[in-house]
Amino acid sequence: MSGLAVRFRELWDEIAPVGRDAGSGGYLRYALTAPELRLREWFRAQADLRGMPVSEDGNGNLFAWWGDPDTDGRAGSGAVLTGSHFDSVPHGGAYDGPLGIVSALLAVDELRAAGVTPVRPVVVAAFVEEEGARFGVPCLGSRLLTGEIDADRAAGLRDAAGVSFAEALGHRPAGADPALLGRFAAFVELHVEQGRALVDADAPVAVGSAIWPHGRWRFELRGEGNHAGTTRMGDRRDPMLTFAFTVLAANKEARLRDAHATVGRVSVEPNATNAVPSTVTGWLDARAAAPETLDGLVEAVRAKAAERARRDGTELTVTRESATPLVTFDGGLADRLTELLAAPVLPTGAGHDAGVLAAHLPTAMLFVRNPTGVSHSPAESATDDDCAAGVVALARVLEELACH
Amino acid sequence: MSGLAVRFRELWDEIAPVGRDAGSGGYLRYALTAPELRLREWFRAQADLRGMPVSEDGNGNLFAWWGDPDTDGRAGSGAVLTGSHFDSVPHGGAYDGPLGIVSALLAVDELRAAGVTPVRPVVVAAFVEEEGARFGVPCLGSRLLTGEIDADRAAGLRDAAGVSFAEALGHRPAGADPALLGRFAAFVELHVEQGRALVDADAPVAVGSAIWPHGRWRFELRGEGNHAGTTRMGDRRDPMLTFAFTVLAANKEARLRDAHATVGRVSVEPNATNAVPSTVTGWLDARAAAPETLDGLVEAVRAKAAERARRDGTELTVTRESATPLVTFDGGLADRLTELLAAPVLPTGAGHDAGVLAAHLPTAMLFVRNPTGVSHSPAESATDDDCAAGVVALARVLEELACH
Repeated sequence: MSGLAVRFRELWDEIAPVGRDAGSGGYLRYALTAPELRLREWFRAQADLRGMPVSEDGNGNLFAWWGDPDTDGRAGSGAVLTGSHFDSVPHGGAYDGPLGIVSALLAVDELRAAGVTPVRPVVVAAFVEEEGARFGVPCLGSRLLTGEIDADRAAGLRDAAGVSFAEALGHRPAGADPALLGRFAAFVELHVEQGRALVDADAPVAVGSAIWPHGRWRFELRGEGNHAGTTRMGDRRDPMLTFAFTVLAANKEARLRDAHATVGRVSVEPNATNAVPSTVTGWLDARAAAPETLDGLVEAVRAKAAERARRDGTELTVTRESATPLVTFDGGLADRLTELLAAPVLPTGAGHDAGVLAAHLPTAMLFVRNPTGVSHSPAESATDDDCAAGVVALARVLEELACH
Repeated sequence: MSGLAVRFRELWDEIAPVGRDAGSGGYLRYALTAPELRLREWFRAQADLRGMPVSEDGNGNLFAWWGDPDTDGRAGSGAVLTGSHFDSVPHGGAYDGPLGIVSALLAVDELRAAGVTPVRPVVVAAFVEEEGARFGVPCLGSRLLTGEIDADRAAGLRDAAGVSFAEALGHRPAGADPALLGRFAAFVELHVEQGRALVDADAPVAVGSAIWPHGRWRFELRGEGNHAGTTRMGDRRDPMLTFAFTVLAANKEARLRDAHATVGRVSVEPNATNAVPSTVTGWLDARAAAPETLDGLVEAVRAKAAERARRDGTELTVTRESATPLVTFDGGLADRLTELLAAPVLPTGAGHDAGVLAAHLPTAMLFVRNPTGVSHSPAESATDDDCAAGVVALARVLEELACH
């Protein structure tokens, strides 16, 4: 193991126990709850150790500055932003988010050890509520900073216990901050890969090219509730049949298009063993490389579901609950990093703060290999050597962008 | 409308508002809760009006005697039992249960108005917790009376709020009562039909022939939880696909056998829109005319699910949660009633107190036409004229069995 991998492991072990659930082995690090607040304190302490002053933007996002934003004459513009988030999905993995922050701190150490001095500030961010697991809106911190969500709406979002985001934060969020945003010349987010493409490519690190367009569609199927024991099959209007057919159709249509379709959530009324259901609602999560592919996929699933609904005597209503357009990361920046790192290029199907910031400044992502390919689960992983390779790659990127 | 249909409607209207949910139009008459206790008080008052003393068996079942069980010398044996239950499934219909009790009271009135005197007692029963909607075990009252459930086990059954059956009853249930059971020569339960066979047969009343063997099987499908956005379709082990295929297979296999198969209940982990599920559990309710048909149906569904699980990379565990054997009603009694009433003969796929008592004494059922065929739903119905026809049929049966 390299010295850097050892240093990675030492730093990583400081946060590994925080918010870990002994039962699942996964993490419960909801934004602004005790475990995540402890990680934020740890972040401040780490920045302090490195002489990096920390600012907060009034939205819950933290920024540690190498190159003081107030006293350094060069701080007014051109800063290079990196970092990620601490919060997790329920019983999520260790790497999704924290890897980007820990790698950024170590990349600063690497540059300093090499005697490199930035000519523009390097800023390490910890964004708040990236997963949306507590307040329901993913990338809440970056959406607030960029003005993509209204501060009043964000203030009123409530968690499962009824606590509002404003209450959790301690004050109304400040909302859009164009002045702060204007100081950043670029954002580079390092993230654990959430699939197995780097396993197949036999490479530890990739450069992100795009975030697939994606969305959620609610398929509500209404039939006729009835007695499971006495209702002849021919007399039924059973929405569970239409639902089942829709699940299989979504899988088939996605495979035909090299896209992703998932039905991971379902709600059944009355959900009784001895009752033909009256209503079955399934949620389709669909993603594809191009918007027209995504549209075609959803339309094909909808058409097949509607055809089956006619056969089953059920009624189908499809509602688009959310839609996120294609994010193409800055082409010039991606090309520059790909050449610099000699790394493969990957699109991703997942949303990230980088996807939000990409509309406002040149943005790139780096992905670190995940041997299991599993994400949002305790089985997510990365080797210390690959994490060290990620730190080296990020340090080279920061040197390239901030030190010449 | 006949005079009897008018009398039916008058009596019916007395109980129609009790426990009715204004939102769904269905009934919330859980056993031994306020609405059902009110119906039991109404039953005692109706029996009192008719000079029928009411006894309770220590298990929560009520019996109104025409022919005093204690003072009438003929009461020791040969009594003819009829009646049904007051409790409902959540948001169930008005007729399932109460129709059998109200019809029995009116049949007594009809016999008296015709000047008929029984030579053996006629007894109207109101059984407790037939649906099992509160304490989880259907036909709890008749199972206790016949000793088919242990009194201690029944005493400890708890409702969703943690209240035990013994607490709801006010005392430990008495359990099996062979002496009481020995007084009954026959049981005839009148019930609203729970399908559309009488609509097709164009007849208001049928005689029951059998209760189909039936059971519940839990299909637990385990895959690998993963990120819906980033996991390639080929890298997934998605149990929702296996579940969907199993639902469609159950439907197809049931139709091939003129049997019934329903998947009306499902549980998904983690049930998140953006997650490939780790586990999907579906419950199969299966019923068929013959035990070997039922076995073949369940085995075919299990085999198809297992084959699909291999393709999906998921693991299948099938657990039989309950199984109820075929109940064939007393052949001699059914033939006698069919001839008496010139009525069609129907099997049913639903459990009833008559199914429990059939193992202990000659038992028959009468079914009254349900125009919608819908059951366990507010849409369940019966016309007043058909209900009057049911009363006439039941009165003729009671006359035949108790008055010669």
